[in-house]
Amino acid sequence: MSNEETANRRLRLGMVGGGPGAFIGGVHRIAARLDDHYELVAGAFASDPQRSQAAAAELHVPQARAYPDYRTMAERESERDDGIDVVAIVTPNHLHFDVAKCFLEAGIHVICDKPMTTSLDDARTLATLVARSGRFFGLTHNYSGYSLVRQARDMVAAGELGELRVVQVEYPQDWLATRLEDSGVKQAEWRTDPQRSGPAGCLGDIGTHAYHLARFVTGLEVDSLMADLHAFVEGRVLDDNVQMMLRFKGGARGMLWSSQVASGNENGLKLRVYGSQGGLEWYQEDPNHLIHAPLGEPPRTLTRNGPALGDAARAGVRIPPGHPEGYLEAFAQLYSDFAERIRALDAGRDADPLTLSTPGIDDGVEGMLFITRALESAEAGGVWVDFVL
Amino acid sequence: MSNEETANRRLRLGMVGGGPGAFIGGVHRIAARLDDHYELVAGAFASDPQRSQAAAAELHVPQARAYPDYRTMAERESERDDGIDVVAIVTPNHLHFDVAKCFLEAGIHVICDKPMTTSLDDARTLATLVARSGRFFGLTHNYSGYSLVRQARDMVAAGELGELRVVQVEYPQDWLATRLEDSGVKQAEWRTDPQRSGPAGCLGDIGTHAYHLARFVTGLEVDSLMADLHAFVEGRVLDDNVQMMLRFKGGARGMLWSSQVASGNENGLKLRVYGSQGGLEWYQEDPNHLIHAPLGEPPRTLTRNGPALGDAARAGVRIPPGHPEGYLEAFAQLYSDFAERIRALDAGRDADPLTLSTPGIDDGVEGMLFITRALESAEAGGVWVDFVL
Amino acid sequence: MSNEETANRRLRLGMVGGGPGAFIGGVHRIAARLDDHYELVAGAFASDPQRSQAAAAELHVPQARAYPDYRTMAERESERDDGIDVVAIVTPNHLHFDVAKCFLEAGIHVICDKPMTTSLDDARTLATLVARSGRFFGLTHNYSGYSLVRQARDMVAAGELGELRVVQVEYPQDWLATRLEDSGVKQAEWRTDPQRSGPAGCLGDIGTHAYHLARFVTGLEVDSLMADLHAFVEGRVLDDNVQMMLRFKGGARGMLWSSQVASGNENGLKLRVYGSQGGLEWYQEDPNHLIHAPLGEPPRTLTRNGPALGDAARAGVRIPPGHPEGYLEAFAQLYSDFAERIRALDAGRDADPLTLSTPGIDDGVEGMLFITRALESAEAGGVWVDFVL
Amino acid sequence: MSNEETANRRLRLGMVGGGPGAFIGGVHRIAARLDDHYELVAGAFASDPQRSQAAAAELHVPQARAYPDYRTMAERESERDDGIDVVAIVTPNHLHFDVAKCFLEAGIHVICDKPMTTSLDDARTLATLVARSGRFFGLTHNYSGYSLVRQARDMVAAGELGELRVVQVEYPQDWLATRLEDSGVKQAEWRTDPQRSGPAGCLGDIGTHAYHLARFVTGLEVDSLMADLHAFVEGRVLDDNVQMMLRFKGGARGMLWSSQVASGNENGLKLRVYGSQGGLEWYQEDPNHLIHAPLGEPPRTLTRNGPALGDAARAGVRIPPGHPEGYLEAFAQLYSDFAERIRALDAGRDADPLTLSTPGIDDGVEGMLFITRALESAEAGGVWVDFVL
Repeated sequence: MSNEETANRRLRLGMVGGGPGAFIGGVHRIAARLDDHYELVAGAFASDPQRSQAAAAELHVPQARAYPDYRTMAERESERDDGIDVVAIVTPNHLHFDVAKCFLEAGIHVICDKPMTTSLDDARTLATLVARSGRFFGLTHNYSGYSLVRQARDMVAAGELGELRVVQVEYPQDWLATRLEDSGVKQAEWRTDPQRSGPAGCLGDIGTHAYHLARFVTGLEVDSLMADLHAFVEGRVLDDNVQMMLRFKGGARGMLWSSQVASGNENGLKLRVYGSQGGLEWYQEDPNHLIHAPLGEPPRTLTRNGPALGDAARAGVRIPPGHPEGYLEAFAQLYSDFAERIRALDAGRDADPLTLSTPGIDDGVEGMLFITRALESAEAGGVWVDFVL
Repeated sequence: MSNEETANRRLRLGMVGGGPGAFIGGVHRIAARLDDHYELVAGAFASDPQRSQAAAAELHVPQARAYPDYRTMAERESERDDGIDVVAIVTPNHLHFDVAKCFLEAGIHVICDKPMTTSLDDARTLATLVARSGRFFGLTHNYSGYSLVRQARDMVAAGELGELRVVQVEYPQDWLATRLEDSGVKQAEWRTDPQRSGPAGCLGDIGTHAYHLARFVTGLEVDSLMADLHAFVEGRVLDDNVQMMLRFKGGARGMLWSSQVASGNENGLKLRVYGSQGGLEWYQEDPNHLIHAPLGEPPRTLTRNGPALGDAARAGVRIPPGHPEGYLEAFAQLYSDFAERIRALDAGRDADPLTLSTPGIDDGVEGMLFITRALESAEAGGVWVDFVL
Repeated sequence: MSNEETANRRLRLGMVGGGPGAFIGGVHRIAARLDDHYELVAGAFASDPQRSQAAAAELHVPQARAYPDYRTMAERESERDDGIDVVAIVTPNHLHFDVAKCFLEAGIHVICDKPMTTSLDDARTLATLVARSGRFFGLTHNYSGYSLVRQARDMVAAGELGELRVVQVEYPQDWLATRLEDSGVKQAEWRTDPQRSGPAGCLGDIGTHAYHLARFVTGLEVDSLMADLHAFVEGRVLDDNVQMMLRFKGGARGMLWSSQVASGNENGLKLRVYGSQGGLEWYQEDPNHLIHAPLGEPPRTLTRNGPALGDAARAGVRIPPGHPEGYLEAFAQLYSDFAERIRALDAGRDADPLTLSTPGIDDGVEGMLFITRALESAEAGGVWVDFVL
Repeated sequence: MSNEETANRRLRLGMVGGGPGAFIGGVHRIAARLDDHYELVAGAFASDPQRSQAAAAELHVPQARAYPDYRTMAERESERDDGIDVVAIVTPNHLHFDVAKCFLEAGIHVICDKPMTTSLDDARTLATLVARSGRFFGLTHNYSGYSLVRQARDMVAAGELGELRVVQVEYPQDWLATRLEDSGVKQAEWRTDPQRSGPAGCLGDIGTHAYHLARFVTGLEVDSLMADLHAFVEGRVLDDNVQMMLRFKGGARGMLWSSQVASGNENGLKLRVYGSQGGLEWYQEDPNHLIHAPLGEPPRTLTRNGPALGDAARAGVRIPPGHPEGYLEAFAQLYSDFAERIRALDAGRDADPLTLSTPGIDDGVEGMLFITRALESAEAGGVWVDFVL
């Protein structure tokens, strides 16, 4: 392998967790593929060895590297020449600590889902381990990856808002407004179970995201806080609604609300920051816009990859302004539908009916018909022309 | 290779076009990676052989399969046992026809960017070739890949709007409001050049998307049309503003506006459809919402992966409601930043400063501190607690 | 009466039309009252003399000045010393011409609803009459009264958009999507009846508003136009959907759509104007915001009475920014509810139950309790206090 | 005067406060005029007798009933046969109590601006007085006058949200983000002065509105609260930022934020209510829409006077759906401009240049030209016609 190829080679990625029925594991895999910096080559995808192997087969991971448990995986992979560079930990919260410790000790870099652990003591122990290991440790507070969140951070840091005064952050959802944990939904089960989630429910699941976002953008440190936690759904042990007040060092004040019982809210993470010179507002369900209100001027709408952005915001974009980030998914959907059509064609079977509406040769001909007729109409001074003569 | 592995194997993808400075090629590659159905293994990425090879190196494509031109590529790949299954054509418009023809004749499936060709005659010839070849031909009218666009189509087909009456579609942009083609922007250059774009400017570039979207959702066929095309920017040959009126078979009426000089519009593709029983509205810059107004009832907002959707819409989603599709990009951004951090660490060099803000171990400890303090405050009945004791 | 009082006295207003069941008459009366420049003192409110008198009683107009027909009214009022200064004509369209003519000839100023007449010939005749009479003639194209519409006009006139290129105006409604004219709704009856509306349906009713708004803001003159009018609802004679293309003098292009069958649209008048230096967007259902997108800069949101407005916009406001104009109606609603409560109290009867929720003394005490408790809590450092001790 | 006329006569209204430079007095007067239930006939408009008389002249109030102080006014008006029925108190807060007391004792109904008094003791004393007097006492918590606020209240009361869980109310503004009180702005001066406002700043000025709105819609009673008040602007004595947590009887939890230093917020009163069966959201700057999210169904947008509303909401409307309430102001603007034009014409002077753009006879002719040309084009099958032949 040439030096150049080495420099450019994809990082070899392993995964612990993320088997069938999991949510965040699939997201981590897509995230790892999107910019083509990683290659998934090993995993302990489920606590049951057979389910782990089945997952591996589906994920194009060689059976030999589908491990029955994370300890075996850490041991074997650290022995291989082509062992994994980094492991992604996407298990329920209560396992994060042990798994991270194990891989760090095996000399392997770690990417870990949040919250990092289920106790503060564990978190501090892990911090010591990371420091000692010299390994990279990344925590997926993913909202800090949005281009305009980074823009907001830069604007605050550059003093564009003046001295910060008020920070309002909220993260309402509604998916746990009923006892979903009784319906066999795996996501709901472990999140409402103190054994697997730790002592914090909504607080740990999404409150921490809200907190990190506020910290990330403002840079303010919390001086003191007060919290009111409540479980509204009958029989639920962990909190499903969090209301907090924050006093920041330097005098700024804040409020934080996270809820999983707020009907009509899907994933409403929203941050508003106000300083002596202006305000900023960002809403995760409309991530391509950042409202900047300089005091005494009309508010301006900054757009992803649009005018007036800084370097950090520019770095986090793949497509032009106005193409919402979902543009890539829509595009990918066609590619996936095309794959099914091609595979069906090659295998001589019928394709999934849901893929039949994808554009093809007839659309191409018709598109050219459309262009041709439009040109004819316009060239004649704007007259009606029959579409098909 | 077992049968099962064969069935599940990634499709081998080749690409023509998409070298340095191109836009849509990169989008096609991300789209192909996202759901992991393809593997890019060959390409003729640029008309200059050396630039094609450089692109291949960057894209993890073996040098042996980085071809100097598409004809060679079609010939060699069709001879290999592990030759490409499918080629993605992402060149300027004027090459689509020849490249598609060449690969179809070599027995290779084709995915082609739009508009399909630069003349109606070529389009019809290509249709004949496709039919004769038995190969798959997919055209990337990518807006039909959005989950809620498919939902809209299904609702119209199911008669939820009653008999269709009015179709308003528009696609305003502003990026060509000045003579950008004189500033060395490759995208602007070829799109305003009749030699490479064909006789249609804005009409072919985005008017066809608007047309396809209207057709895709409504199923209505155009009976006649009238068009007024105009080039507003001085010295521009091809149209940069398109205004059309459409009469559909069955009596519905429509208007189509596409423009590349409408200041303040980034990629404003919008479709509104009205029938005797209700209306629908979808806007590409907010793709996760679909407004459905049943006649005489309050309008309802359908959300991607939210309540009340059909099968086609459900098939096109990867993440829960409220996570805008850009969620995946934000997540991917962290993974890409992590990759840079890991590579820098392993190489003993400084990481790109733009990646230094990614969350890590300190954020993890602080997150646990946050949870711990919040629990303490709440358990004490909601009192202020110092953040760090 | 002193000179000063004369200068400041309210104009004496008469009204033709606007009796029971009418819509626009009531709007004219509120409009006349709002800024207290008029006093309604006479009227021929209905074609039936008794209904005219009943309307007068309700409107605080003396019975002696409730006329059986507009001719008598014009004659008598012009003879009085304290006769009306100005008449408001709010009849169906077919009467505008005769009534206006009659009052102009009697030397009385005229305020007339739109469309001015039902034929171009009548309109020209009326113009001659107005010129000859020296009387004031105002036409209520009311959308030109919005503060931010005037701001838009001034910005265009000041060249802030550069040379105008594209004008998109639309006015969709849905209230005539079914045969409402058969249900005894007076508004629908005369608007769909060529005898009372003239030969234009949706075109005359709301298309003219869209046209006036575009003209008012842009100042552009139409060079030529093409129109496609359609009646979608079975059995309807006059158009209920209008689609037009416009070519303006100087080269700008435009589209105009008005519809009364577009489900989900209530009163969606919207104007977008694009020039070589920027764009503007205003939407009647959100009249307190005007989007200004200078080319190459983030769009700015101008707000009614907010920063960066000109004189014309400032002149048209009564309340501070952020108080949507409906603020006044909400306030008025309380006053009207209070009036009912007071009248009921004075008459010893029960008040309308719908007025019972208005705030009163208990709310006042509770409001002070709220303030007091909040101050107590805050002064103690932010502790929980019982609301009622 | 006949019985019928008596029943229908306008209430005679007096006003205390509301002279030159005041804001809310003018709003009260417009509110009183809008539905024509009141006639302003007396006032003590300013503490200086001459300024009170000047104000009266401007407001069409007879000089004889322009009083030097409120005590004289109460005395004299209570002695007149045609004395005022009701007084509107629109002074700074510290005077509310004395004035209200004085008029109640004179047997006159009272409409009072909020907050009712500056201390809880005064409030309770006043409540006793009101009860004893048998007079009507209305408090202008004007946001409860919005049609859709009443709809929200009815929906909660009817159990459409199930059992209430979370109430989030906020009222951010930015107009006091700097020391505006030093710039001679009367509104800012008294609101930041404890002598005239009482001990609560932002809390009393707008926090009470937020509180009342939450109470009005939910009907929930507060069990306990905790508050953090802060003055961010240097040298300011009264709070300009209020953050509170609320515990309601029955277990619901709430947060309240009001601020006058949140840059970019004009008058952002917003209420969100969540129950076990659904959620509601209303925002004062977009008062014509109410979002209702029934649990597990797509959210529905209720519109003022639109489908699916109850009686209370229907009672509070004057115009059809889609005409935002500001429609009336725009209409009134034309009437006011017309008045200036008429007065100028009659006086032989030039009209205010800002009124010259109002639509008139030329617009009427052109409107008919527009209709005529559109009909010609459409009748010829949709062809281009010259606008002026």
